Amino acid sequence: MRRTMIVRPIEWTDGKIRLIDQQLLPEEVNYHLIDTTKELAEWIEKLKVRGAPLIGVAAAFGCALGALSSTARNYRNFQEDMDEVISLLASTRPTAVNLFWALERMRKVLYSNSKKEIDQIKKILLEEALTIQREDEKTCKEIGENGASLLRDGMKVLTHCNAGTLATSYWGTALGVLYSAQEQGKRIEVWVSETRPLLQGARLTCWELRQAGFDPVLITDNSAGWVIKKEHIDCILVGADRIALNGDVANKIGTYSLSILAKEHGIPLFVAAPKSTIDRSIETGEEITIERRSPDEVVNLRGYSVAPKGTKVVNYAFDVTPSANVAAIITEAGVLEPPYRNKLLESTG
Amino acid sequence: MRRTMIVRPIEWTDGKIRLIDQQLLPEEVNYHLIDTTKELAEWIEKLKVRGAPLIGVAAAFGCALGALSSTARNYRNFQEDMDEVISLLASTRPTAVNLFWALERMRKVLYSNSKKEIDQIKKILLEEALTIQREDEKTCKEIGENGASLLRDGMKVLTHCNAGTLATSYWGTALGVLYSAQEQGKRIEVWVSETRPLLQGARLTCWELRQAGFDPVLITDNSAGWVIKKEHIDCILVGADRIALNGDVANKIGTYSLSILAKEHGIPLFVAAPKSTIDRSIETGEEITIERRSPDEVVNLRGYSVAPKGTKVVNYAFDVTPSANVAAIITEAGVLEPPYRNKLLESTG
Repeated sequence: MRRTMIVRPIEWTDGKIRLIDQQLLPEEVNYHLIDTTKELAEWIEKLKVRGAPLIGVAAAFGCALGALSSTARNYRNFQEDMDEVISLLASTRPTAVNLFWALERMRKVLYSNSKKEIDQIKKILLEEALTIQREDEKTCKEIGENGASLLRDGMKVLTHCNAGTLATSYWGTALGVLYSAQEQGKRIEVWVSETRPLLQGARLTCWELRQAGFDPVLITDNSAGWVIKKEHIDCILVGADRIALNGDVANKIGTYSLSILAKEHGIPLFVAAPKSTIDRSIETGEEITIERRSPDEVVNLRGYSVAPKGTKVVNYAFDVTPSANVAAIITEAGVLEPPYRNKLLESTG
Repeated sequence: MRRTMIVRPIEWTDGKIRLIDQQLLPEEVNYHLIDTTKELAEWIEKLKVRGAPLIGVAAAFGCALGALSSTARNYRNFQEDMDEVISLLASTRPTAVNLFWALERMRKVLYSNSKKEIDQIKKILLEEALTIQREDEKTCKEIGENGASLLRDGMKVLTHCNAGTLATSYWGTALGVLYSAQEQGKRIEVWVSETRPLLQGARLTCWELRQAGFDPVLITDNSAGWVIKKEHIDCILVGADRIALNGDVANKIGTYSLSILAKEHGIPLFVAAPKSTIDRSIETGEEITIERRSPDEVVNLRGYSVAPKGTKVVNYAFDVTPSANVAAIITEAGVLEPPYRNKLLESTG
């Protein structure tokens, strides 16, 4: 078995969070130590750290940071501090549910240990964050194994945005499937759509795939349909930021278009995501808040404006792919096929 | 009637071609005088002048430049010079047929005047280029009038790349339809996909639409599907670089994907183009040479590399939209609806 070597985007080191600044990739591989919740919140907002599962892990560590820096001497004040920390982190990004899932999990641990000493609770909160990190890595490996069963040797796979090790604790979701397939000896040809406006496909996915020994082919987003047709792409494989009970999938803007192109060409679109991405509180994707981000992301390319001053921009950061266009949802629990509702309920029950 | 004011991208002035450098828009509106065929060929290759009809007009003026600078004293030598000029211009871009159409028209004029004095032929060639320019403008106005009949007041129209005044002598094809609709008092809301890699939608279309009094909304290419769905786009309106007899349309990369998204959402995709775009020599789009351009266009954003060094890139500059996805082809002869073959044959016969 071939060993795939990839980076760890997040680690807890000496009471700080060690993160790669993903905005600087691929030109600079810059690790940074974060020691305040406020700085972490800024990093999440500015997409220096991004990817639904990784945001969850980072937020859990953010709670640990907040806990360790609290000077409260009684539980009531400590909980007030923690509520503030959690609410700050929750306000950073609206779409990825893993963020809220991790914060709720930390909050539950906080509440259920209210009778303990503050120092004790701090340790427990840090331990919980480390557990979330370890679980995420284990989950990604399981997603990888499960998803690899869908891939055959020699396949051409198109992926969008970055659902790789850089979007998780380690290994990745959609790209984890590719890494697992590679370790099984399957040769997969990976095509990557650049993913405007922030080019996570070009910057992050091509970078980590090359680190892992792949030789990805980069294309512009708008050429996806033509490339699927002319280059005979076999399937599309993406991650997810939130999955509704009916199987509707919120993911990076462009996924919805890709799902229609997949359907048109008779190829499957697979979604790979941990169970923490499934939002049991919503029946359909209609209920998912879709983040709209700054026009600046679209028009400002390193200080150069690509559109005339004053041009209106609508910058949806995500879209919702209807479950009818999703051939399978790959989680740590297995490969789920439509209809999804009962399977998603059971696997998260 | 409201008057729409837009720029003229090409003019013949004192024996030179006056062109806007379209690579510098929208930051700089820079007019440049070109006095050699060689420089014009470079401008076409580098997309400083682009747009299928405009390339045709520019190439005709390029022949005039070549003719005027010839020092040949007899017809045989003059024709040799002209053959070289025509072959240089023909080698610049492979997909837009208007280029070859204009060059063939100039060649015919050359051959059919072989008995005349060289100075006389030079004048005739320049006059032919000026005629092509005037005809292109007239044609665009007719396309505009014909196409405007398809648009209702208050419609939301999505356009791709730039099929505007900047792609023609004046007025434009797809955008000309919008200008004609505006002059008829119809208010049209225009959405523009940025059109990677060279961002002609953001840079050129937004610029000229704003000059013309529109307030366009810019989006990334990958958000087109989501925007069509969430913003209730009524139709897609694009230009063409070459049209086969069966109605298959070669146009800027991304048009094929848009045509599938239009079909999925039950909205029409209209193609606006002069008859010179119709290639009677080919039955279907399968026969159209699709230009693949430098990876650099995709990965190099003003000196900054968006992908790791060595990343493979496939950069299709055009794609072919099957006629089944084209609701109508708008030419100066009228609005043609499927089936196209006989109508395209008749209108170019």
